[in-house]
Amino acid sequence: MAITTADAAFLEAALELAARGPVVDPNPRVGCVLVNDGAVVGRGFHRGAGTPHAEAAALADAGEKTRGATAFVTLEPCNHHGRTPPCAAALIDAGVVRVVYAAADPSHAAAGGAQRLRAAGIAVEQATDDITDHAARAEALNPGWTFAARHGRPLVTWKSASTLDGRVAAADGTSRWITGPASRQEVHRLRARVGAVVVGTGTVRADDPALTVRDVPHDGQPLRVVLGRSDIPSSAKIFDDAAETLVIPTHDPAKALEQLHERGIRHVLLEGGPTLAAAFLAAGLVDEIHAYLAPVLLGAGAHLLGDLGIGTIADGQRWHLDDVARFGDDVRLIMSRTSPNRPARED
Amino acid sequence: MAITTADAAFLEAALELAARGPVVDPNPRVGCVLVNDGAVVGRGFHRGAGTPHAEAAALADAGEKTRGATAFVTLEPCNHHGRTPPCAAALIDAGVVRVVYAAADPSHAAAGGAQRLRAAGIAVEQATDDITDHAARAEALNPGWTFAARHGRPLVTWKSASTLDGRVAAADGTSRWITGPASRQEVHRLRARVGAVVVGTGTVRADDPALTVRDVPHDGQPLRVVLGRSDIPSSAKIFDDAAETLVIPTHDPAKALEQLHERGIRHVLLEGGPTLAAAFLAAGLVDEIHAYLAPVLLGAGAHLLGDLGIGTIADGQRWHLDDVARFGDDVRLIMSRTSPNRPARED
Repeated sequence: MAITTADAAFLEAALELAARGPVVDPNPRVGCVLVNDGAVVGRGFHRGAGTPHAEAAALADAGEKTRGATAFVTLEPCNHHGRTPPCAAALIDAGVVRVVYAAADPSHAAAGGAQRLRAAGIAVEQATDDITDHAARAEALNPGWTFAARHGRPLVTWKSASTLDGRVAAADGTSRWITGPASRQEVHRLRARVGAVVVGTGTVRADDPALTVRDVPHDGQPLRVVLGRSDIPSSAKIFDDAAETLVIPTHDPAKALEQLHERGIRHVLLEGGPTLAAAFLAAGLVDEIHAYLAPVLLGAGAHLLGDLGIGTIADGQRWHLDDVARFGDDVRLIMSRTSPNRPARED
Repeated sequence: MAITTADAAFLEAALELAARGPVVDPNPRVGCVLVNDGAVVGRGFHRGAGTPHAEAAALADAGEKTRGATAFVTLEPCNHHGRTPPCAAALIDAGVVRVVYAAADPSHAAAGGAQRLRAAGIAVEQATDDITDHAARAEALNPGWTFAARHGRPLVTWKSASTLDGRVAAADGTSRWITGPASRQEVHRLRARVGAVVVGTGTVRADDPALTVRDVPHDGQPLRVVLGRSDIPSSAKIFDDAAETLVIPTHDPAKALEQLHERGIRHVLLEGGPTLAAAFLAAGLVDEIHAYLAPVLLGAGAHLLGDLGIGTIADGQRWHLDDVARFGDDVRLIMSRTSPNRPARED
């Protein structure tokens, strides 16, 4: 529903608080502002796994002043016992009389926090204004979490790095480095935001990558995942103690994602070779592409992408271009699926 | 040499005038401002082949007020009888006492206009200030002309249009349209600026392109050029009367460029397939690349580029990225050679 200008300003403040939280899959970034008699009496945001939720942090911050307050939250308050008690109950106990939230929690749509709050006599409103767009902005803070809550599987980002003519290695198999240091550093930033980095056994055998986050600020390491049925040398770097590693002996992308989802992974970064990428793309299981292009021409060598079973131009997979940016002498294109869930923009 | 602030302002005015001229290969765009007693008394710019040069136009505009004037010209005045008499002589006859020019004319470096003017007792200065950079900006108005004057062959721009994974056609040979209407229109703008559009016999047989400038403002049509030794259907569109067409039965890029240079072509647009592009690239005869990338994945089909004889990653042709721009849902990269003549920027 439409909200007042004052409400909108408090939601903005909650969004700003939410963005201060660390981006660590799968914990959603959430912000909360408590307002009493028109004045902010408490602020909180989620600082990561095992720490209080935003609402609990704001209630603690407000102390005695929670009774009669309105809570502005970027995400619908939770109604389940996880590592912390449900926030809906905490808000009720604290005497909050009104709750305004931005994004709904699709994972608990049926028996959610809003319902519980209403049952306790609290006025609950979702801000659905198209102009201020609080809901979409709150969801955008947690792309993996939001996607997984809605679709029941992790969000999959495919990262590619190729020459302008679509090669990922030269004729003799050499491939380091096609892209430059600025691009590689940005890939480490991307790794720091996901829950798992996935490659195939072929990439482990050919390149022996470490798959860790390095040289950029990070809060823990993503899970390293190897898919496939070929042997992996026990001396491979992915078996060192720099991060956890999981081998999933399957070629089926859907099965692998199911297993990762069960482990609580909400955002997966695909960094494998042409075969792995083609398997995910052909299965419709890539949601976003980060394509790094180096201004290099090879004219021969391994292709960026294996066979997708596409025979004619009209059947080509068409993506939506979301962003173009330069990193050193390279270019990064960010693309998303043009699906009914995320329609292509008219521009 | 360094020039005064007033001189710099008059050169700016000359540059603005030059830019009003049509971009039609091979005619350079040149502007001229005549100043007497600190006031502009005449303005002129070159309007294309067969029309007066900028200096002649400015002298005509100034009428009686040329005696004792200073001429500010974007290009060193010419000293040869072409379709019009030499401008150096015209300036001398009109009683001009000082000439300030931006870009030197490298095609007449030895016995140029500046020398002739000086011999007649006229003060001649080239503006070489690194900050205002008049010379480079005047040269940039006429990339083909400047390049050809310096190197004795036409400037070669390769235009490519491919999928993100480096394909120019699907497995069944279909290729229309990989890029969108905005990209295709921009290619027509590019065609309108060059003297010749070059393809191989293979492209004529496979695609039967018209190779004309369409749907954008243009001043004449570039020469259509077909390279190769295979047969061409006499019904091919390139043989219609929409533009002139030249068949050069050779596979040697250098020979073809020599022949085009002799015909007065200063800027060539390479629009052929992977084989033609590879031949020019392997010979080091591509100076600039306009690469259009569509956010499409095919996973199979014809490659953007034929074999360059490159075996290992370190030997890849590395280009300098000059510009990145979006056209609809496509991206265009402009790249230039990182040669001693045009060193890679440190950025």
